[in-house]
Amino acid sequence: MDEKNFVVGVDVGGQTTKLGVVDARGEVLAQSVIRTDTYGDDAEAYIAALAEAIKQVVEEAGKKGEIRGVGVGAPNGNYYTGAIAFAPNLEWAAKGSVEFSKLLSKKLNGIPVSLTNDANAAAVGEMTYGVARGMKNFIMITLGTGVGSGIVINGQVVYGHDGFAGELGHTCVVRNNGRTCGCGKQGCLEAYCSAIGVAKTAREWLESSNEPSLLRECDSITSKDVFEAAKEGDALALRVFEYTGTLLGRQFADFVAFSAPEAIVLFGGLARAKEFLYEPILNAMNENLLAIWKGKVKILFSQLKESDAAILGASALAWEL
Amino acid sequence: MDEKNFVVGVDVGGQTTKLGVVDARGEVLAQSVIRTDTYGDDAEAYIAALAEAIKQVVEEAGKKGEIRGVGVGAPNGNYYTGAIAFAPNLEWAAKGSVEFSKLLSKKLNGIPVSLTNDANAAAVGEMTYGVARGMKNFIMITLGTGVGSGIVINGQVVYGHDGFAGELGHTCVVRNNGRTCGCGKQGCLEAYCSAIGVAKTAREWLESSNEPSLLRECDSITSKDVFEAAKEGDALALRVFEYTGTLLGRQFADFVAFSAPEAIVLFGGLARAKEFLYEPILNAMNENLLAIWKGKVKILFSQLKESDAAILGASALAWEL
Repeated sequence: MDEKNFVVGVDVGGQTTKLGVVDARGEVLAQSVIRTDTYGDDAEAYIAALAEAIKQVVEEAGKKGEIRGVGVGAPNGNYYTGAIAFAPNLEWAAKGSVEFSKLLSKKLNGIPVSLTNDANAAAVGEMTYGVARGMKNFIMITLGTGVGSGIVINGQVVYGHDGFAGELGHTCVVRNNGRTCGCGKQGCLEAYCSAIGVAKTAREWLESSNEPSLLRECDSITSKDVFEAAKEGDALALRVFEYTGTLLGRQFADFVAFSAPEAIVLFGGLARAKEFLYEPILNAMNENLLAIWKGKVKILFSQLKESDAAILGASALAWEL
Repeated sequence: MDEKNFVVGVDVGGQTTKLGVVDARGEVLAQSVIRTDTYGDDAEAYIAALAEAIKQVVEEAGKKGEIRGVGVGAPNGNYYTGAIAFAPNLEWAAKGSVEFSKLLSKKLNGIPVSLTNDANAAAVGEMTYGVARGMKNFIMITLGTGVGSGIVINGQVVYGHDGFAGELGHTCVVRNNGRTCGCGKQGCLEAYCSAIGVAKTAREWLESSNEPSLLRECDSITSKDVFEAAKEGDALALRVFEYTGTLLGRQFADFVAFSAPEAIVLFGGLARAKEFLYEPILNAMNENLLAIWKGKVKILFSQLKESDAAILGASALAWEL
């Protein structure tokens, strides 16, 4: 049995790294988690620990010698170069470029490693195992701490000239006096429609009025608090989601004008607020679409478990190795 | 000599249709022009006249029986369906869908016909014979009566799920109180940065001030008048181009965040104002780009003759038949 019929998927997050052994049908045979944030700026130490964890999980799955490759999704992961560069949430890759694929492959005795950014990996996961199964043209939007995106055209993830395509969270949604985004620009979609953006909208609105709201009882408001308050029927919290959805929908209309996707798929923590986001997104998008697209582009919400989607998406990358 | 080593390129414009016989090296062996706008709403009459003109130009080139296929670029031309539908500037296709490829192929005794929109055809022309030669990732922006676009990713024109991808002229550049665009939406790029948009900006600014300007001598201002005045050093005309370039540059930054192109290529009548547009575009784009792209994306101006680029681009489509 010399054939290599299994792959490993790795999802590198700011705090934890999830990894799993996956078979050709997309079943996760064994999985594991390590910390991402306990290695300071020592990239080699992190990569050594990751290689060790991969060996262990492969052993656990009983697939030693049968791994075809490792697929990795990581913030700022570049598909072309195999490097992670200037990733603000990864201390060991925040200030320079780490030759991630090369270093990890070396530690794994030459097993090939393929890298992409986390949103692209999620898009591949969704296309292979999720609501975008069978779709050739869709856009994945990840609504988490930030707003990420993975764009699929003709069944292929778009990497662009330099490997960094698909930064839709940093397109401009508020032109004048927009909020300053973490990236330093003003008015980015991410500054308004990420988990942090939603919490900020709520805080701004509470400060600028005396409207009663359940949120006034919270010490430091998070997007989860806004979600809980909206479920209780809190008027201000409900309006925060309506506003967030409206901004998303407007921006989605411009994305549709670019690549004419069959669907836009939402994923990530904030996408759990589907009941409050779906209608405003759909309405604002359709209001801003050309007639040829009105009522024709689907807004879908991922149904994969977040950790599974990321591991599966990253692993799908490894099949191409 | 039974091999078919020649193609025909057809560029359908609102007023005239240009066509030519092209060889594998991109040389136009013979070309011709017919009217587009003298057939009322009778699509069949126009297509019959076009077929006749194609036969004549092929005869003139001495390539009867050697034509592999016909490539057509037309407003609202759909690559997937071969139809032209709801094209406001083509009277015979303004109110419904015309099965263009099928009808034309029939009139040409079965020679295959491939159709796409005019901006996509121009992009293919630029990639095959122009400043985008050798580029796999670029965006073509046509600045004419309207603002069109053709997007190339991985060396392929992006058609999207339905064949209508690349309507970047109808993305939103002014969010609040934006001008009404010909498409019915507000604040579209086309409403500001087309030839018509430039003339409108000049007229609005003249009406709202008493600033002296050469343009006050014109009866009905066109973008060409603004261009001529700018060349004379007219301050208001120069500011109109600066404003137009700034809006284009801002919007280009968002396009870069989508597909990370190597270059954005400008084409069409208004692109002749390169001397006034280049700097404001480049500055506004770089101001609005993420750090990873600042100073890295080229702004190029087409150097192909407009009619050649369109014929060549459309003809390139026919080689794939």
